[in-house]
Amino acid sequence: MNSSSKYAIIKFNSETKLIEEDTIIVEYTLNLFLNGNEFISFLCTPDALESMVVGFLFSEGIIHTTKDIADIRVDMSKGEASVKTKNNDQYYIEGDKFFGKRAISTACGNQKTICYPILDFLGRKSDRLEKKIDIYPDKVLQLVNLFNKKSGLFIETGGVHSCALGNQNEILLFREDIGRHNALDKILGEALVNEMLLEDKIIITSGRITEEMVKKVVKAKIPILISRSAPTDKAIDMARRFHLTLIGFARGNRMNVYANNECFI
Amino acid sequence: MNSSSKYAIIKFNSETKLIEEDTIIVEYTLNLFLNGNEFISFLCTPDALESMVVGFLFSEGIIHTTKDIADIRVDMSKGEASVKTKNNDQYYIEGDKFFGKRAISTACGNQKTICYPILDFLGRKSDRLEKKIDIYPDKVLQLVNLFNKKSGLFIETGGVHSCALGNQNEILLFREDIGRHNALDKILGEALVNEMLLEDKIIITSGRITEEMVKKVVKAKIPILISRSAPTDKAIDMARRFHLTLIGFARGNRMNVYANNECFI
Repeated sequence: MNSSSKYAIIKFNSETKLIEEDTIIVEYTLNLFLNGNEFISFLCTPDALESMVVGFLFSEGIIHTTKDIADIRVDMSKGEASVKTKNNDQYYIEGDKFFGKRAISTACGNQKTICYPILDFLGRKSDRLEKKIDIYPDKVLQLVNLFNKKSGLFIETGGVHSCALGNQNEILLFREDIGRHNALDKILGEALVNEMLLEDKIIITSGRITEEMVKKVVKAKIPILISRSAPTDKAIDMARRFHLTLIGFARGNRMNVYANNECFI
Repeated sequence: MNSSSKYAIIKFNSETKLIEEDTIIVEYTLNLFLNGNEFISFLCTPDALESMVVGFLFSEGIIHTTKDIADIRVDMSKGEASVKTKNNDQYYIEGDKFFGKRAISTACGNQKTICYPILDFLGRKSDRLEKKIDIYPDKVLQLVNLFNKKSGLFIETGGVHSCALGNQNEILLFREDIGRHNALDKILGEALVNEMLLEDKIIITSGRITEEMVKKVVKAKIPILISRSAPTDKAIDMARRFHLTLIGFARGNRMNVYANNECFI
């Protein structure tokens, strides 16, 4: 399935009016079934779907490595992904939070359940990031420059966010998606499947940085997060708490460092 | 509660390195309880929260007018909104879809339930929009120009989306939020509370147009949707199906018309 398609549209400017074919970003729905139950729907760009699912399950704390997955299938024509985890736990959503329901058989044949919120890693001091990478301002700006040059779908359609995994010198993985979170999940999933070391890597994103984006990067133990756009207050607070280096508005020869700036002072 | 706050950050450019106070957009969590049950969490900008909740419930088909609401309370310090609808139906989420569970008492004191997906308005021909407004390309571009001038929080923080309700000549309502959908829900809620006629109005948004944004605008019977950004393929398909005039990349003296372009030919 293509990530973009062609539509006839009218292009106006102050002097001309043209009917032209334009390239439009495809919006695709993928329903994820987790251990047999419908769990969540992704509105996404239809590529790297398996990576996206793996990255999402990892970010949400449902799996810790790819070894926790017993089976994963993606049926693109049906818009369905199906994952079985080895522990076969049941998960559900309450409000916007995910809970895990661990099935415990009892003698009478019924099941009792215990529930725990999945994103429970926060607040433990041991989760503070250790920076296993040195980086300098000019390297950050060079990296963002490389990142900007990669964006094919954005140039074609103007309708996507980009995300990349890099080191000081180069972009290693690059993905685009209509959703900021999906693009990051695709990158994390790909890195996980390839068993890449993450503690000396950098995430670069085109999109705004919310607390949720910081959580995903901290969870993956990646020490530096760079964005072309703005962070929110909660994103900065969480980055400072977990010693994540948070850089925003990295454009041309400028950038702002919002958290964990020791390496730049 | 303020929509932005101040943080000390480092600003780099190729020649200087300054520690400065910067204005950061606030990310706020509002948990919505619907008829006593936790229903959904909003990540949003903390203003116009009651409008946002009303607009959201309307967009999702849970209420049809403000008269369907028996009681609405927002407790900003707790981050909680509580709504009671007159019908007192129960609602829940499966995957990413909302379902209504209408409680029917039975003689034995238990409750049986029937379930229906809430967004059931699609596919009925009677829901095609009637355009009760004439608009011309130069008027669209003037309106977008007025819209751009309004964006205070964006100028301060660079971290928000804007949304407005207008007519041919002016911006009537304007809101900013970290979420595209929230900004639109705030506008729709405000219009609903003020009992504004929507069939001759226009929505303008800074954000990308997905199917979900088109659904909300169609549901409100607003015939024209204008964006500074790109639409997705599903957004165009749905706009064409419901005769919504869909305009994207409206910037400076240019724009693209993706759907229902009769009025411009």
